[in-house]
Amino acid sequence: MTQRQERGRDSGTPAARADRGSIDIDDLPALARGCAVMGAGGGGDPLVGVLMAREAIRQHGPVRLVGLDDLADDGLVMPCGLVGAPTIAIEKLENGGEGGRLADEVEALTGRPVAAIMPFEIGGANGLIPLTWAARQELPYVDADGMGRAFPTMPQMTMNLAGVPSSPCVMADERLNTLVIRAGSVEWTERLLRSSTAAFGGAAVAALYLMDVATARRATVPGSVSRALELGAAMTRAGAAPIDTVVGELAAVELIRGKIIDVERETSGGFVRGSAIIEDAAGEGRLLRLEIQNENLAALEDGEVRACVPDIITVLDARTGEAIVTERLRYGQRVGVIAFPGPQVWRTPAGLAAAGPAAFGLRFPYTPVDTGGLHAS
Amino acid sequence: MTQRQERGRDSGTPAARADRGSIDIDDLPALARGCAVMGAGGGGDPLVGVLMAREAIRQHGPVRLVGLDDLADDGLVMPCGLVGAPTIAIEKLENGGEGGRLADEVEALTGRPVAAIMPFEIGGANGLIPLTWAARQELPYVDADGMGRAFPTMPQMTMNLAGVPSSPCVMADERLNTLVIRAGSVEWTERLLRSSTAAFGGAAVAALYLMDVATARRATVPGSVSRALELGAAMTRAGAAPIDTVVGELAAVELIRGKIIDVERETSGGFVRGSAIIEDAAGEGRLLRLEIQNENLAALEDGEVRACVPDIITVLDARTGEAIVTERLRYGQRVGVIAFPGPQVWRTPAGLAAAGPAAFGLRFPYTPVDTGGLHAS
Repeated sequence: MTQRQERGRDSGTPAARADRGSIDIDDLPALARGCAVMGAGGGGDPLVGVLMAREAIRQHGPVRLVGLDDLADDGLVMPCGLVGAPTIAIEKLENGGEGGRLADEVEALTGRPVAAIMPFEIGGANGLIPLTWAARQELPYVDADGMGRAFPTMPQMTMNLAGVPSSPCVMADERLNTLVIRAGSVEWTERLLRSSTAAFGGAAVAALYLMDVATARRATVPGSVSRALELGAAMTRAGAAPIDTVVGELAAVELIRGKIIDVERETSGGFVRGSAIIEDAAGEGRLLRLEIQNENLAALEDGEVRACVPDIITVLDARTGEAIVTERLRYGQRVGVIAFPGPQVWRTPAGLAAAGPAAFGLRFPYTPVDTGGLHAS
Repeated sequence: MTQRQERGRDSGTPAARADRGSIDIDDLPALARGCAVMGAGGGGDPLVGVLMAREAIRQHGPVRLVGLDDLADDGLVMPCGLVGAPTIAIEKLENGGEGGRLADEVEALTGRPVAAIMPFEIGGANGLIPLTWAARQELPYVDADGMGRAFPTMPQMTMNLAGVPSSPCVMADERLNTLVIRAGSVEWTERLLRSSTAAFGGAAVAALYLMDVATARRATVPGSVSRALELGAAMTRAGAAPIDTVVGELAAVELIRGKIIDVERETSGGFVRGSAIIEDAAGEGRLLRLEIQNENLAALEDGEVRACVPDIITVLDARTGEAIVTERLRYGQRVGVIAFPGPQVWRTPAGLAAAGPAAFGLRFPYTPVDTGGLHAS
């Protein structure tokens, strides 16, 4: 029952989108829809990001979206976002000033002004929350990210694959606490960031992998923000068959359409872990099981891997086509589950080592999602 | 059965000890003995500190001991020491370079050179480990500390009582990880430091309450290092009655002399917690119970408080008079338990709020140790 379609509008190179324009309040619903689908169920509920970004843009005006080619080589890029369990982030709205404190600390540490703000992950709320900070600081927003999706840990960023140091990593919370981590390795950055996130109450904000624009051009996923905007716009235009629109836009595979009949989920160690089971709507008795760690990690059917990390698995509301983040999965929801390849860098040996099934403790080899020979770039 | 004696040699004011001289390898055993007794069973086993300091002094020469009156008003004082559970610190000997990295980070943060190194707590290993760093960096060692004893948490420092900010707090470990905490309050410094200590594996080093010399003069316990050296020297000279010597030097009360018949102890949340019971050697059936959180917090007999924080309770080996840190208490040890007042600042309302019984969750009021009317300054 899978659908295979040509990729739609998302084939432009960064150079082909020289005029990226700006992001205004009216663009936020589309951006949120796109980020949610690209988030593989993770990155936090984008609605939180929409609320924050709307207020910031209302106060400070639209945010200029810039390609890395539009910035000076030696400009300082600040990748940033929310860290911690999305279930907690929902409750623990930050006050909007954290981004400014991250930038202040980054500028004090480097002695350089921040030239532009980049989301370290485009998926979920993290595609929108740094936009809030860009608005408040009246800085441009980089049309790129460090994942092309959402992943639960800091080593799982393209900047790490490209050898950009994770230190210094700056963290902040809503209580005016700030933390600077200078770790000997990205694993230690992750460990210290994770323990501090727990101490902060389960969620905080962070900036890491500070780099200049020239480095960012080779170390990030270009065009992520445009892609999310375009996908979201297409979803907004879609009529009766919203899931089909998403599948078409992304050249995705529809793994199943049906009802959620079981959800297990717990928040521990700064992560949301669990599983969900979807029963086929066609009444053929098919069951799809999703394994979750903040994001949807794998989709299994009859003991067989239908899709798994680093490919992107997203649960869509059957009626609206909107992505449902993992912390909002509930018994009885009517959904479609889609899968599509993430950025090609995650399918390299280094990418698979960092973010393939084994990196999450899953005991099966990477099985590329079958999209009929079409791959995302 | 308590013994009350006049305080001995430790009555000099800082001004009266203008020539503090230097600390050489030969002084380390005495310093360790003194620090152990003043540590109330906490601060880590001073033997670890002796080994580290010996090696550092061998390489870099004796360390100059200076009073705060001997330093320029605007010099930067770096209070520092080991944080975490002493049981882990015993196993996790740091490499000696951490102190230099703390100082480097402090100098980068403040833009000022470190003028002198001060132990943030004189008790236990923490009276000696910063001496190691002073030796390696060829900086003077301040004859003062932030406790006059050992306490388990960072708010329990005289600098906090004096209103010195705990931020920035710098942490480091032996793996070249460094952390800078800028917290909105000392409670958040403690919380973030404690969670990071756990992430570091249970022990790390830290510098906090950075201040200039003029501030340090009103915010620290003066003469702590000299006091530990003098006490240790007296213990070294003592012959047949080592416990009596300590009691005499400190105008302490001997609470019991006998055998340890029970020890309960666990390491959790970065602390060593537990209790020990000592049975009277005279065969009168008296039992003294010690409550422990890194340090000896309280001594109870027949449900009555004989001594409690912030007064200093120390277990001494009956044969040698040496203090036994809480993590080395064992069934069958022959010991004497003494108690004596710590610095007067801890007996003030603010001092009791920070470090009295209630601050440790003990449900009884502060009961000053009965020393027959004699108080330490």
